[in-house]
Amino acid sequence: MTTNIDLAIIGAANATGEALLEILEQRDFPVGKLHLLDAGESVGARLPFRERRLAVKSVTEFDFSAIRLVLFAGEDDMLPFARQAATAGCFVVDAGGTLASEGGTPVVAEVNPEALAEAAGGGVVATPSASAVALAVVLKPLHDNAGLRQVDVVSLQAVSAFGKAGIEELASQTAKLLNALPVENKVFSRQIAFNILPRSGALEEEGHTGDEWRLVRELRQLLALPDLGVNPTVTVVPVFFGHCEAVHIETDGELAPEVARELLARVDGIELADDDGGEGMPTPVTDAANSDAIFVGRIRRDVGRANGLNLWLVADNVRRGAAGNCVRIAEILVRDYL
Amino acid sequence: MTTNIDLAIIGAANATGEALLEILEQRDFPVGKLHLLDAGESVGARLPFRERRLAVKSVTEFDFSAIRLVLFAGEDDMLPFARQAATAGCFVVDAGGTLASEGGTPVVAEVNPEALAEAAGGGVVATPSASAVALAVVLKPLHDNAGLRQVDVVSLQAVSAFGKAGIEELASQTAKLLNALPVENKVFSRQIAFNILPRSGALEEEGHTGDEWRLVRELRQLLALPDLGVNPTVTVVPVFFGHCEAVHIETDGELAPEVARELLARVDGIELADDDGGEGMPTPVTDAANSDAIFVGRIRRDVGRANGLNLWLVADNVRRGAAGNCVRIAEILVRDYL
Repeated sequence: MTTNIDLAIIGAANATGEALLEILEQRDFPVGKLHLLDAGESVGARLPFRERRLAVKSVTEFDFSAIRLVLFAGEDDMLPFARQAATAGCFVVDAGGTLASEGGTPVVAEVNPEALAEAAGGGVVATPSASAVALAVVLKPLHDNAGLRQVDVVSLQAVSAFGKAGIEELASQTAKLLNALPVENKVFSRQIAFNILPRSGALEEEGHTGDEWRLVRELRQLLALPDLGVNPTVTVVPVFFGHCEAVHIETDGELAPEVARELLARVDGIELADDDGGEGMPTPVTDAANSDAIFVGRIRRDVGRANGLNLWLVADNVRRGAAGNCVRIAEILVRDYL
Repeated sequence: MTTNIDLAIIGAANATGEALLEILEQRDFPVGKLHLLDAGESVGARLPFRERRLAVKSVTEFDFSAIRLVLFAGEDDMLPFARQAATAGCFVVDAGGTLASEGGTPVVAEVNPEALAEAAGGGVVATPSASAVALAVVLKPLHDNAGLRQVDVVSLQAVSAFGKAGIEELASQTAKLLNALPVENKVFSRQIAFNILPRSGALEEEGHTGDEWRLVRELRQLLALPDLGVNPTVTVVPVFFGHCEAVHIETDGELAPEVARELLARVDGIELADDDGGEGMPTPVTDAANSDAIFVGRIRRDVGRANGLNLWLVADNVRRGAAGNCVRIAEILVRDYL
């Protein structure tokens, strides 16, 4: 019999917080007392959970010593409360990379759950960016079979990676343009509506952005391959929810498309939307948005290289990448560490 | 002194036809009599050219034996008239790949003008897809310097690649979604508004689409490298004008980012929107749309491979890729063959 666990969600009122509530409910997480914490205007709002409506409480007044588990959906302004919870002895599980610089090795539940041992006595459990979560889940079984040598990835990020402000900027710019009104750029440095941005954020070493270096670092850590060649281009596209990744890999051994298909079909949480003779064509809107699965399609041989393989993946960055990984990690903590 | 040349445009009233008129004017093409030809409702419309407004005439009644040069902006339904013009002894220059199956080697004015000799006595001059035009112009100087071995490209096609119907589908779906109305798919098999389609068209051999195999074939022909490794993913994105291409290349010799930058800076018609210490960030809306240039940025080393280089390019598929290449080819014909 599972004991119910008291837990808190920091940043409960934003998109990631709402996704956490839905996934806790869907996956039948053993929830005891649930504390929804946020700040500012959100305090006092009521959010649905299991046929009840729970009030959002002020994070500044919460006593973290009363609980052991915190899911963190906040943005940077909530970081002090994550630290406070960790100091009070809680496991603080990140829901989407905000705590990357606070914890140790980032964790993806299906890929490297053993890294949770580092946080065994409580503390921050770091998680990687949504792009890295989906990519690592898909690449793990392929690596185990054929040995990964190189990963090239063009990631097309949805605007929800930039929070509610990113979502609002795409919606409002689109409405204005359809009415022939001028648009303003706040979150993004260029118009995002009907446009593609070839990078997010400033350039760092060697012309790669922080998001790109982070993807390199996280993928190497998750797969425990410190020398893996990872060559990323991280862009932003006018899509609300669902990151797409056009992926090319090279393996040490042969890996035929049929074999890759079989390996991925066996993974719980991966949906093969494969093209082989079918109509499969996984897209953010028709497949990924609001889903807890990772959709993979377009598995095909590289034109030109032996042991090269292409594939396309799409996953809801908030529900699958951020919140989905957070709840799966919390399940392991409950089972093995709490 | 240049002699003015009488010419006709087939499909003058569509987006490519209108772009041809603008570019003929901008580049001060030596136009004699200009015949604007189209069919259906467009006949009788008047289009602006050099401070005049020229009437669109019916293509079915035109006598092609009166002229030597035809620019072809039509879609498939206009193919019989292209053939008729070629039989009458005209040079029929394609403006965007519709005639690919009718002519010989596709031509990009800056890359392989010598292939025009094949059509020396008149006939169809084939041109490649807009993605291949921009890519070939950018890769040529890099190949000449360091020897191309492999090209990986993720092409993000704007909806105007699918004609007026593609443009209308994106506009009308977007307007409906903002008003919470259901959308219909006609041109594209999935919703295109706020979405990314991982392929256009059906799958052919080995899981690649016709557009992808075409890019492989055309790039090899244009660069005269029949064994070049070309590994493409061709997608469709909710952008009106301007194809983006995330490009990765491997070269035989070393090719430092600084050297690539210098080589590209020297090419007429390429604009370096480069990131090196600057704000460069070439996008379809802010740079490519309505421009006759190819914008290149994000030139940086591959993370993982020696002699690997990444770059990002964006160009207006209609104005630069289709119409721009067509007019540049016509200029060479006037100079050397007419």
